[in-house]
Amino acid sequence: MPMLPIRECVRQTPGYVPGEQPQTTDYIKLNTNENPYSPPQEIFEGLQQELEKVRLYPDPVSTKLRKAAAQVFGVSPENILAGNGSDDILNIALRTFVNPGETVAFLDLTYSLYDTIARVHGSSIIEISLNHNLELDQPLICSEAKLIFLASPNPPVGKHLNREYLEKTCEEATGVVLIDEAYVDFSEDNHLDFIHKYDNVIISRTMSKSYSLAGMRVGFAIASPAIIEQMDKVRDSYNLDRLAQFLGAKAFEFQDYYQQIWQQVCQTRNRLITSLRNLEFLVFDSDSNFVLASPQWMTALDLYTKLKERKVLVRHFKHPLINNYVRITIGTNTQIDRLLEEIGNLKNDK
Amino acid sequence: MPMLPIRECVRQTPGYVPGEQPQTTDYIKLNTNENPYSPPQEIFEGLQQELEKVRLYPDPVSTKLRKAAAQVFGVSPENILAGNGSDDILNIALRTFVNPGETVAFLDLTYSLYDTIARVHGSSIIEISLNHNLELDQPLICSEAKLIFLASPNPPVGKHLNREYLEKTCEEATGVVLIDEAYVDFSEDNHLDFIHKYDNVIISRTMSKSYSLAGMRVGFAIASPAIIEQMDKVRDSYNLDRLAQFLGAKAFEFQDYYQQIWQQVCQTRNRLITSLRNLEFLVFDSDSNFVLASPQWMTALDLYTKLKERKVLVRHFKHPLINNYVRITIGTNTQIDRLLEEIGNLKNDK
Repeated sequence: MPMLPIRECVRQTPGYVPGEQPQTTDYIKLNTNENPYSPPQEIFEGLQQELEKVRLYPDPVSTKLRKAAAQVFGVSPENILAGNGSDDILNIALRTFVNPGETVAFLDLTYSLYDTIARVHGSSIIEISLNHNLELDQPLICSEAKLIFLASPNPPVGKHLNREYLEKTCEEATGVVLIDEAYVDFSEDNHLDFIHKYDNVIISRTMSKSYSLAGMRVGFAIASPAIIEQMDKVRDSYNLDRLAQFLGAKAFEFQDYYQQIWQQVCQTRNRLITSLRNLEFLVFDSDSNFVLASPQWMTALDLYTKLKERKVLVRHFKHPLINNYVRITIGTNTQIDRLLEEIGNLKNDK
Repeated sequence: MPMLPIRECVRQTPGYVPGEQPQTTDYIKLNTNENPYSPPQEIFEGLQQELEKVRLYPDPVSTKLRKAAAQVFGVSPENILAGNGSDDILNIALRTFVNPGETVAFLDLTYSLYDTIARVHGSSIIEISLNHNLELDQPLICSEAKLIFLASPNPPVGKHLNREYLEKTCEEATGVVLIDEAYVDFSEDNHLDFIHKYDNVIISRTMSKSYSLAGMRVGFAIASPAIIEQMDKVRDSYNLDRLAQFLGAKAFEFQDYYQQIWQQVCQTRNRLITSLRNLEFLVFDSDSNFVLASPQWMTALDLYTKLKERKVLVRHFKHPLINNYVRITIGTNTQIDRLLEEIGNLKNDK
């Protein structure tokens, strides 16, 4: 038997490591930016009808879901591609616009999946450095990039990128700019207007965080019909199952409910930031449903470990720029009280 | 604004055209090889618990689903990759083993998605011709192919490929051979034993047809751990949502029920073949849940159109080798009676 023909780009990539997803329920789970509030119970009404049709293929082009999304995003369904989560959208964009060997650019500190999928795809990668405040302090100019991934708000810091720099980035780009707005509903700002101003911009959205549907894998690309048409060829023809399409479309109907829980998350976030600062943490401001915070009296890795022993799960990254930070997802007020109590105890024990 | 950097391979591909999926229920739908029988109602028990966790990410590695699949397929979970339908598996295999520009081989008459995804990927394509009986009459030897897609049973004819030729194909291949067994549960034979004999073989399976779960998108690759490990890096990290994982795993528990409906489908298929031959059709034997049949007294396109007017949907392909055939999915006995009645009327009107 000859060697298996594994592509070099695949062989050399270690693969993406998702955050821990304990299959037990005894943790206070503040590690993967899920919404602490469930979707409104009403979205499950009518699900039975879908279950009865489960032997039949779903709508290959997610018509109802795209229509509902279009209404909420203020665009037409032709501007929308539905993805199996927004991770699917990121992958489709790579495979539509970037030949292996061509360049993809993104920030040195951002959603780590960009790096993994670009490597697996065989792309050349250019990482643009944030400044010492972990901010983008100028437009990202990279004339060789066929695709630029920019998240705004940008994890793991969670702040929006500067709008003027983003505008300039899109103006100067010779390739496509994908602005990943996974966390945008926890902020005041968004960049949907860019798709009318720039022909080369894709906005990606997900229902995983703000719409409390991480379990269902629903995401979107929002862009010009010219872009959507090409990405649609790369998309798996049945990429969203019946129940994902149904629940996603239904969830969009409950804007009032969601506005309310987003506001609640933002209030809890602001309280957490203040409390952590009082407990001698460095904390970045956040436009997201998480905060990045560094304890000044214990290493972040120690804190992560001791909280985990106490059944509170936060996220620690090995990345050298932030290895003394933990990223904490905003939970319910009760969950955050418990977190703060545990942290207070750990601090007192010092 | 410069031109968008659409990859040539994407721009030049027209994109896959899935079979019609009418969103109304007034058709007798015999066009996309769905199972006419629903899954057992018991698989929905316990779904409520999953719905309550829908705000949480699913298990990224589909542990329970893979364990259930492993048991049914008589392998270990390390031999299994779960896909968002088996289409996801086909795409992952391409992206794991084939650099753009390298060669993918498949038959000239087979599942048409192989061609679409190989083109979108930028592969060189070698199509191997079936003989005039639409059979593979020798091993498929293609030393430059990094990946060979072979479906057994092979649509749209629906017969298994010759086992000896398949063995020889795997022995001689310098790349990976993926045997797509989407329809295998409607036959007596399968090729799971190949993964123990050949290090370069992947078997793909789907729950869309035999397990009546087309609406949920659940498929598998079954292969050596060395293959699965590499494909896993290319897989989207959350490619199956909670409900797909749950329903897929539950369905595997009901082997007796499924054996029964598969048997029923096979009986109906054999009756349909006999009846169509009596109605002056050429009909291929079938190991699948569909038959390929050519009316000798009307064009197949005409038959397709007139049946559609009468609310019976079958599939017609433009491919020159079979453009005088229709592919008919095996429905319930009642549905097939209605089909035969409509065909009888059309024949009498001639």
